[in-house]
Amino acid sequence: MRAAMTLLLILTISGCTSPGEPGDQNPLAAMTVPRYTETGELLRPNGVETWVFVGASIGLGYREEEDGAQTESGPGLIHNVQMQPEAYAHYARTGEFPEKTMFALTLYRPKRNESIARQGFFSGDFVALEVALKDSERFNDGWAYFDLGKDRASAAAKPSESCHGCHAAHGGDDNVFVQFYPVLRGLSRVSPGSPPAVP
Amino acid sequence: MRAAMTLLLILTISGCTSPGEPGDQNPLAAMTVPRYTETGELLRPNGVETWVFVGASIGLGYREEEDGAQTESGPGLIHNVQMQPEAYAHYARTGEFPEKTMFALTLYRPKRNESIARQGFFSGDFVALEVALKDSERFNDGWAYFDLGKDRASAAAKPSESCHGCHAAHGGDDNVFVQFYPVLRGLSRVSPGSPPAVP
Repeated sequence: MRAAMTLLLILTISGCTSPGEPGDQNPLAAMTVPRYTETGELLRPNGVETWVFVGASIGLGYREEEDGAQTESGPGLIHNVQMQPEAYAHYARTGEFPEKTMFALTLYRPKRNESIARQGFFSGDFVALEVALKDSERFNDGWAYFDLGKDRASAAAKPSESCHGCHAAHGGDDNVFVQFYPVLRGLSRVSPGSPPAVP
Repeated sequence: MRAAMTLLLILTISGCTSPGEPGDQNPLAAMTVPRYTETGELLRPNGVETWVFVGASIGLGYREEEDGAQTESGPGLIHNVQMQPEAYAHYARTGEFPEKTMFALTLYRPKRNESIARQGFFSGDFVALEVALKDSERFNDGWAYFDLGKDRASAAAKPSESCHGCHAAHGGDDNVFVQFYPVLRGLSRVSPGSPPAVP
């Protein structure tokens, strides 16, 4: 009996069940969640390069003139959007973005005519990391938006008027521009578009 | 003692250790590997939408005139490149692509001026899935290349001369164009480029 108790203890300590496996109580338990400084700034999240990728765009902008948008000298920055795997799985299962969902937007300068590339643009220098996150406990708008630049350790939320209004009015589903992200378009129950990205 | 044995049995059957955790014998054991038809065609891989994303490009081509490359009427197709998480982790750890590494290239038609987009291009309709894979047991060149189109269930490897020669000659690391993928540029030990994508 003592041996059995010891094994049970080992099992408990080692956290045997993987997150998301059948029988797991809360598939979101292992999700990377936003962390804040004492003054309420968002700490730069780690490991976003392995988050689930939902779509890429280039030079995307919402006004006629915008930073990072298309200019006469080039097509604008390449934008990649990724989210935590657990938030993605939750959205696929329920059609809702769970609290603490984070979208990481990584921006790259377009580069051309290098190596054997003769047409088009690939992703050159890393420019900045931006984050959109859902944390209703902390933000009255429900969502907040951060520019962590190339290497800032933390950033304050942008003022409501600079991002939230547009996301709230035009985001296809819960403030998120799912209409621009093919992987989410195929999953959204509010704003369905084309079928899943890779049938 | 019997209780302890029972628990050990449960532990063994349930495969307690997650792949990739310390103490695991083979972190590659859980990796999605290529599957082939009886005639040797590659079966369309499942689940590539959650593979690790390593880079996006637009209209990228290696000849002056190329399918999917930039044209007068638009910037060409958006290309997203993803690989199995276990192959990514192995490359990060060892600098080598393990056998059965697969790169999924998803192609999207660029779309503009929809919803609130006023500048640039986002990813519109899904066009095709292409795969590059490393399987030295099966292919003399080590790597092989497949066009699975929009919804083909399987595809034969392209002839050596249509892809392999160029990948072998110009791929920055082991036939892979790591020079175009910022996340891999930061990890490569052969062809190092810019620092990791998201510091």
